[in-house]
Amino acid sequence: MTQHPFDVDPWGIGWSGSQSSSWEGDELTHRESVFALSNGHVGWRGMLDEGDPCGTAGTYLNGVFEEHPMPYAEDGYGYPENGQTVVNVPDGKVIRLFVGDEPFDVRAGRLDEHRQFLDFRTGVLQRAVTWTSPAGVTVRIDSSRLVSLTHRAIAAVDYRVTVIDGDAEIILLSEIVANEPLPQVHPDPRVMESFDKPFIAVDQVVTGDRATLLHRTRRSGIGVAVTKDHRISAPESAAVRTEAADDLARTTVSVRLAPGDSIRLLACVGHEWSDSLADAALRDRAEAAVESAMRLGWEGLAREQREYLDAFWDCADVRIEGSAHLQQSVRFALFQVLQSAARAEVRSIPGKGLTGAGYEGHTFWDAEAFVLPVLTYTAPAAARDALRWRHSTLNHARRRAEQLHLAGAAFPWRTIDGRECSGYWPAGTIAFHINADIADAVVRYTRATGDEKFERENGVEILIETARLWLALGRWDDRGGFHIDGVTGPDEYSALVNDNVFTNLMAQKNLRAACDAARRHSDRARDLGVTDDEISRWTTAAAAVHIPFDTERGIHPQSAGFTEQERWDFDRTSPEQYPLHSHFPYFDLYRKQVVKQADLVLALQFAHEAFSPEQTARAFAYYEALTVRDSSLSAAAQAVVAAWVGHLPLAMEYLIEAAAIDLDDLHENVDGGLHVAALAGVWSALVRGFGGMRDGAEGLQFAPRLSPPMTGLSFGVRIGGRTLRVDVESEAATYRLASGTPLTLRHFSETHVVEPGAPLRLPIPELADPGPVPSQPAGRAPKQLAGHE
Amino acid sequence: MTQHPFDVDPWGIGWSGSQSSSWEGDELTHRESVFALSNGHVGWRGMLDEGDPCGTAGTYLNGVFEEHPMPYAEDGYGYPENGQTVVNVPDGKVIRLFVGDEPFDVRAGRLDEHRQFLDFRTGVLQRAVTWTSPAGVTVRIDSSRLVSLTHRAIAAVDYRVTVIDGDAEIILLSEIVANEPLPQVHPDPRVMESFDKPFIAVDQVVTGDRATLLHRTRRSGIGVAVTKDHRISAPESAAVRTEAADDLARTTVSVRLAPGDSIRLLACVGHEWSDSLADAALRDRAEAAVESAMRLGWEGLAREQREYLDAFWDCADVRIEGSAHLQQSVRFALFQVLQSAARAEVRSIPGKGLTGAGYEGHTFWDAEAFVLPVLTYTAPAAARDALRWRHSTLNHARRRAEQLHLAGAAFPWRTIDGRECSGYWPAGTIAFHINADIADAVVRYTRATGDEKFERENGVEILIETARLWLALGRWDDRGGFHIDGVTGPDEYSALVNDNVFTNLMAQKNLRAACDAARRHSDRARDLGVTDDEISRWTTAAAAVHIPFDTERGIHPQSAGFTEQERWDFDRTSPEQYPLHSHFPYFDLYRKQVVKQADLVLALQFAHEAFSPEQTARAFAYYEALTVRDSSLSAAAQAVVAAWVGHLPLAMEYLIEAAAIDLDDLHENVDGGLHVAALAGVWSALVRGFGGMRDGAEGLQFAPRLSPPMTGLSFGVRIGGRTLRVDVESEAATYRLASGTPLTLRHFSETHVVEPGAPLRLPIPELADPGPVPSQPAGRAPKQLAGHE
Repeated sequence: MTQHPFDVDPWGIGWSGSQSSSWEGDELTHRESVFALSNGHVGWRGMLDEGDPCGTAGTYLNGVFEEHPMPYAEDGYGYPENGQTVVNVPDGKVIRLFVGDEPFDVRAGRLDEHRQFLDFRTGVLQRAVTWTSPAGVTVRIDSSRLVSLTHRAIAAVDYRVTVIDGDAEIILLSEIVANEPLPQVHPDPRVMESFDKPFIAVDQVVTGDRATLLHRTRRSGIGVAVTKDHRISAPESAAVRTEAADDLARTTVSVRLAPGDSIRLLACVGHEWSDSLADAALRDRAEAAVESAMRLGWEGLAREQREYLDAFWDCADVRIEGSAHLQQSVRFALFQVLQSAARAEVRSIPGKGLTGAGYEGHTFWDAEAFVLPVLTYTAPAAARDALRWRHSTLNHARRRAEQLHLAGAAFPWRTIDGRECSGYWPAGTIAFHINADIADAVVRYTRATGDEKFERENGVEILIETARLWLALGRWDDRGGFHIDGVTGPDEYSALVNDNVFTNLMAQKNLRAACDAARRHSDRARDLGVTDDEISRWTTAAAAVHIPFDTERGIHPQSAGFTEQERWDFDRTSPEQYPLHSHFPYFDLYRKQVVKQADLVLALQFAHEAFSPEQTARAFAYYEALTVRDSSLSAAAQAVVAAWVGHLPLAMEYLIEAAAIDLDDLHENVDGGLHVAALAGVWSALVRGFGGMRDGAEGLQFAPRLSPPMTGLSFGVRIGGRTLRVDVESEAATYRLASGTPLTLRHFSETHVVEPGAPLRLPIPELADPGPVPSQPAGRAPKQLAGHE
Repeated sequence: MTQHPFDVDPWGIGWSGSQSSSWEGDELTHRESVFALSNGHVGWRGMLDEGDPCGTAGTYLNGVFEEHPMPYAEDGYGYPENGQTVVNVPDGKVIRLFVGDEPFDVRAGRLDEHRQFLDFRTGVLQRAVTWTSPAGVTVRIDSSRLVSLTHRAIAAVDYRVTVIDGDAEIILLSEIVANEPLPQVHPDPRVMESFDKPFIAVDQVVTGDRATLLHRTRRSGIGVAVTKDHRISAPESAAVRTEAADDLARTTVSVRLAPGDSIRLLACVGHEWSDSLADAALRDRAEAAVESAMRLGWEGLAREQREYLDAFWDCADVRIEGSAHLQQSVRFALFQVLQSAARAEVRSIPGKGLTGAGYEGHTFWDAEAFVLPVLTYTAPAAARDALRWRHSTLNHARRRAEQLHLAGAAFPWRTIDGRECSGYWPAGTIAFHINADIADAVVRYTRATGDEKFERENGVEILIETARLWLALGRWDDRGGFHIDGVTGPDEYSALVNDNVFTNLMAQKNLRAACDAARRHSDRARDLGVTDDEISRWTTAAAAVHIPFDTERGIHPQSAGFTEQERWDFDRTSPEQYPLHSHFPYFDLYRKQVVKQADLVLALQFAHEAFSPEQTARAFAYYEALTVRDSSLSAAAQAVVAAWVGHLPLAMEYLIEAAAIDLDDLHENVDGGLHVAALAGVWSALVRGFGGMRDGAEGLQFAPRLSPPMTGLSFGVRIGGRTLRVDVESEAATYRLASGTPLTLRHFSETHVVEPGAPLRLPIPELADPGPVPSQPAGRAPKQLAGHE
């Protein structure tokens, strides 16, 4: 049983450290990830202001990467030649502090207080420190840091030092530091050599207390401008000097303070990048952004941040009664999901957001399959922007499809800029379901928002090109069945399978959505070369998609023949042998019944219309016994279906586990950043799972139920420009619309209309006996976590 | 239609060049490979004596490799961490010639004659050159080169220069050159960097005209000693000086010659290596080997070479009437197969022998499945040594099995020293059939030779450990069937399949052979921990091995479900898109019916007892239509079964193609060395195919038939210490034994006994109508080659 190291607070995450706390290794990098700030464009890991001790330095700009040749022991056709890896850009958050001639260091002198608090309502990371230097001078540091949700390019630090005891010269070095080392993000040490000083210095400009560093990445040729400007308040005039060299800009402030005196330094940092803009244009943009932020000052930036978040929480907040832990977890999750995407603006949502360099900064299907369903119903503009990013990469995807001798578009399994970066095709390129996942996200977004402009400009084209892919990929059997052979589904412990049920059902939805969109936007479809004949082929294929079913067991096999495979010998697998892929060869995992992460169970959720309640319950139980959850994507997906089939205590256990993945570092890899999709899963487990929310062609449905310790649940769902709030008690659920047009929804199986201003309170029917609780492989039951009573 | 560039000669390969011939690129490297000399321990590519022009420098010592870290874009459990690559060792064959102050160069001055001839009977590569220097001095060069079959460490050059016209100082620089560059043998350029100067100079010794260079490989730490000694005959005393530096030893000979005068230089080069011997011991061994060779002199070495080859050809020769091309091809094939293994002595037989650095110098299943069946019946001692090498790697194979959580031994898919070097597991590690192929070679060798000592000391252990592997790898179904799931068979256009028929049948034979050997050598089996219970599990598994059969089509599928897969669209595949693996992604090849190389057809040959004649004929026709022959291993295998099912003209076409693979550079990759297994296939196509030879538990069978242009065929088969010679005419076959005990064999389906000295002439029954000739995919019929009429 682990205990998460943070203070429990409904609206924030706090950590109080002391000199005996761990200031190194996993514990430090874990905090740096949890305290990361981002707006989707700029990401600052939660390192200490002073730069040391530091676990993993990280300042990321969404889209800035360095290329490297992909290493292969044996080459093959269609293997991507170049990889892309996020790099740590010039870092403007460092403010080094010297008290007299001694550097501030939590590990030296005496640390009386060290508290960090990430406030979900203000969007500010606060820090309060009381420290006595080895020479006996006591100072207090109050710093506040934000990455602006209203000024895309801006991050700022409000740094105050007060002398409590003693008399000292205080020196602050406020810096931009370039070419800090990147952590080990690629298994090949020779690839890592490409990231030794990835930036070439192009130019430095100093004007007053403002400095700009201009760099360019060595291979990918991306230009990055970082500008840092300062405002200083001190009791007497401080000596200030700013200078810049290739990889360092530094503003040095020194002032003599008597006890009770303070110095306050506001540092605003602007970040711009481009692979096409001239250096001067980049520099000007960064400086203009800083100019405008400096005019607002800290208070102005902080006020806008608060207003932005107030609006977000007003719609999106999920309130939980009965568990302070869960309350904190779901708000942390929503806050981080928002941070990953709020201002990404036609950039991707990486698997780790901008909180770490894990997975090389790549974006996967996680974005569309896990994160966008949450954003669609809580911050729809961010969902739209992420889909517009996918749309912007269509040409890369078309070329990839052509290279694979397919048609339409084949989106990459992992990428930063839209080109395939997956170096292991059995669990990469051929996980073609990502294309249907993207199509599904398009349909969901369009349906939930009614955003016609997006659909015409972006949605239709994605739907059509992905439908073309499925038709090229599939095969017809003699009896007119349509099969998709030789692909990999969501579960990475299977590969190169035929008729993966998840893939086939999602492809079917994709084909149908393309028909529908092409008919509704026939001019757009015509421009894209769609003929009636093509639409009729999609229709026929969609109707003919083969969904294998094991009649003997009454179970949908994950893919053709899956239920005939040998079962993994769980009894002979020791706890230390998990995750299995680190201890067993892939071929052995692939040929046996063992599931890394929800696959058929994800189909039960994403394509729920295709399964009867009995099939759903039986399949859930069957796959529970095979699922080892070696992926952070699984627990929340299992929670949803567990709740749907009535195993509410089990659903709660999975929800609690999902909520702990990052806060408790369950997978011991949060040093690489947060698991944004797993965080999104916390919302899904609550809203889709316990809220029983299903979306689809037939509109929104809810079938809410509580389970201990949760005694109340309230969540907001953005739908067609209005916010539906659902308040769940144990016996009834109340649906409310503050404004807008009436909304038709289903509560359990009955259809109701919710009128604005007229809350609708509906009773929750009694839960039918769900039968015996499904069991998991030995040792793979949901983690039992302390603090959740 | 291509025309092979060599002179047709029944006992050799000749090439006559002129100044207008190509002295660069593929044509040059092709000749260097074809003229390569080797004894299995030392290999010298057929570069010109003078070292330039040179295509691919290459002097190889069997077992000398350099290690490199294996590059992976994405890591996985059980992936080999280190690769091994053959390196070009210090090269002692260079004798640079200067005529006056001008270097001899075929491309300068005037070249009146340049002839090279590789003589299969003498084992000598001869060269005769008449050249006039730019300054007008005409010289004749006669050189003879051999790699000794009787002195393992020795290669020698007999180099003579005669002044024909003019008066000149002749200078010879006889050298050992270390750290010559290696050609591109690995797809990753960064791996190739590991091979930039792989040798560290350790020591140099000069004594008189003899020099020794001692080196050690940088990572693998293998010591290599090369000694070169000289004997000089000239009309007047020549000035001779020998000196040595780190990477160069040089003996400089200068002499003034009048017209008609000659200088003769004998250079003997000794090669030793070790990963454990001290430097001094290595040096002494190389020098002692040279000492003994110098005592014999050129004439002595050449005499021993001739005697060795006389003995070989006496047993092994295959004589063909009606086709000078085929006659040459089969002798070239036998000569090169012998060269690859004659003195390997407990070292591997690499895929390219010691003729080039292709496939990084690795050994594959080729050795046991294709080369050893030939050696077993033509040079059994070499077959035994190769199997003893496998036996010597058992500890590596046991550790690999353990790493894969299997049991017994898992031999590597590709290796130099016995450790797995396959960096793409779907067509590497999981091609487990290699283990049964090795077991099969053990059984064949033991049966053909009656070598009890080998069986006790080596064979039993291999059979037992591989049987254990199969039992660990297989699974039992509910009905008691034994399945082998998730493996790759011989065909590399399928992977990760269940119940590959070839694999299952070979595993069955392996299990049965292990039972048999364990019972006959029960003390050895007991030492290896074999219990009666274990033997009975092998027996049960062997009997229960599942062999899938497609009853609808009356065909054995290559593996479970294969015949249900989509057929490759051959009509839409253009000729430039072959080989398919260079133009299509693996997943698409894997999921469709398309065959790179004989797989089920190889099962028809290797496990012929398992198929009825009707099944064989039908399966052959079925797979012909799917087989694209993108592997050099395929044509000969198809030839054998084509002959067996009575399609003799088709068999002849495949035989002709197989014979042309290296001599005509059909795959355009002979620069990396010869395809030893494909060469072995020429023998197989003739002896197994046209000779109708089948071996197995029931003894030797023959069913010989001729086909135009072949009007007569005679071959020798070593069996139980005696040589059976089979002379095939169109109407009858004659079996003879010169000496030894009587031999029981089957001629077609009748059993006969051949008595020594009493040739048995038996009529060949008329060929039943084999039905329509099977067709191949469009454009993939056997190559039509000129010169075969």
